[in-house]
Amino acid sequence: MREFSTPTRVYIEDTDAGGVVFYANYLRYLERARTEALRSCGISLPELQHEQRRLFVVKSIKADYLAPARLDDELTVHANMIEIKRASLVCQQPVFRGDQQLLESSVILACIDADTGRAVRLPDSVLGALGASVTHSPTAGAH
Amino acid sequence: MREFSTPTRVYIEDTDAGGVVFYANYLRYLERARTEALRSCGISLPELQHEQRRLFVVKSIKADYLAPARLDDELTVHANMIEIKRASLVCQQPVFRGDQQLLESSVILACIDADTGRAVRLPDSVLGALGASVTHSPTAGAH
Amino acid sequence: MREFSTPTRVYIEDTDAGGVVFYANYLRYLERARTEALRSCGISLPELQHEQRRLFVVKSIKADYLAPARLDDELTVHANMIEIKRASLVCQQPVFRGDQQLLESSVILACIDADTGRAVRLPDSVLGALGASVTHSPTAGAH
Amino acid sequence: MREFSTPTRVYIEDTDAGGVVFYANYLRYLERARTEALRSCGISLPELQHEQRRLFVVKSIKADYLAPARLDDELTVHANMIEIKRASLVCQQPVFRGDQQLLESSVILACIDADTGRAVRLPDSVLGALGASVTHSPTAGAH
Repeated sequence: MREFSTPTRVYIEDTDAGGVVFYANYLRYLERARTEALRSCGISLPELQHEQRRLFVVKSIKADYLAPARLDDELTVHANMIEIKRASLVCQQPVFRGDQQLLESSVILACIDADTGRAVRLPDSVLGALGASVTHSPTAGAH
Repeated sequence: MREFSTPTRVYIEDTDAGGVVFYANYLRYLERARTEALRSCGISLPELQHEQRRLFVVKSIKADYLAPARLDDELTVHANMIEIKRASLVCQQPVFRGDQQLLESSVILACIDADTGRAVRLPDSVLGALGASVTHSPTAGAH
Repeated sequence: MREFSTPTRVYIEDTDAGGVVFYANYLRYLERARTEALRSCGISLPELQHEQRRLFVVKSIKADYLAPARLDDELTVHANMIEIKRASLVCQQPVFRGDQQLLESSVILACIDADTGRAVRLPDSVLGALGASVTHSPTAGAH
Repeated sequence: MREFSTPTRVYIEDTDAGGVVFYANYLRYLERARTEALRSCGISLPELQHEQRRLFVVKSIKADYLAPARLDDELTVHANMIEIKRASLVCQQPVFRGDQQLLESSVILACIDADTGRAVRLPDSVLGALGASVTHSPTAGAH
């Protein structure tokens, strides 16, 4: 498992008339943290898209909103890759303000071909960068 | 169960550099549909906030992204209240483009006191408007 | 001049902790109205992008915020094409709530080649659809 | 004049199907930079709102989009307070990627009473923090 976290400030754009962070905007924080987690492993999403024609897409998300974040809060957003599989990643993404957990979330990502939109195997460069053991089974061509 | 759906157009603001709707933006569609579902029952969120000091907040969400939506798509966003409880609502919210389902999602909402942020019973006016049977148990005052 | 307007509802996603619509979000409303104005003339932005490799981009905006919009407000967003030139459009975009004007704005759009990013002449199909007189000067080929 | 700038990364949430940063999202960057500029002077917007019942609101904006920002770009967003007046601030906010200017913008902010929404004088604490000379004219009470 690869652990990663990044600080994130709450700005006015993130809040709503209830005085708290709008529920959809946590997903923006989560995506930023995942991008930074990949960057910290040497993986660049634009390069992946333009050179290898590969995109990461979200397949599913589960999130529990435990307590609200407010304007000016400094949050810690995690992106822990808890499962690295041939064609998908499972990323656990709690969000904290200090010691208090505000969000519990889990995101499943898949890799797709940017041209066809079809699910494909994660590039070896990505698997290697994430520290996964890259194994080429003799039947890989059948997938 | 109360069923509701509303059409939603995909605009440029909703898309990302992958050419599809950004995953967080579906949650904006879902919230609009829930607001319209409540409005269709005669429930106004600003009135609820300003007159009764009650807010609906999202407690949890589960979403499966089945297929991407693209610029200019006309989506049908559902907000089906499948459980109406004393202090929470469960809202099932699939999103379709024509016959094709793009998103499967389920959202749990709670009602909170706007001043204290604490979970409270849904106002009778809301329960009544949603068609729930409003029962006053003798011990209701204890809650 | 071609006049167009479209109704727009204010949702929670649009508001901020000040209780009003966040200033950047008016630009989302303006873009929706421009897209609908073009659609009402038979112009589809995705078709323009995919078939003719042409994109509209904003070159400049001026906006005066006259009064705040609030949750649940029904706004009327205008997109009046007041100048249609060979390579740009000037769109005047006031926003009203009933009789009260909330925003005064003016947006200049240019047409670019989706592949090179360079400014290009508006396609004849667009000029024609907007009701501009399409004149081919003998030297047009030199541009 | 007080100069300030802050680095800002472009994330997927900021881009659109044209592959570039959506025009409204620059205004989110500008707001973050203004907030950080105020913070760097010791001014907290939530404190201002909750303790003094004062909000800053945008009165007008002018922006010229010179060149597009793209996914993963590292931008420098400026917030230069070029005029500090009794009831308003003028903030010049160019955005750069390295040496290349992508946006030219100017924002006028006013201070309002959070309860009445009416324009009011900037609090002395803010004027002082911004380095403006705070002068109490004998007739100030009449305003």
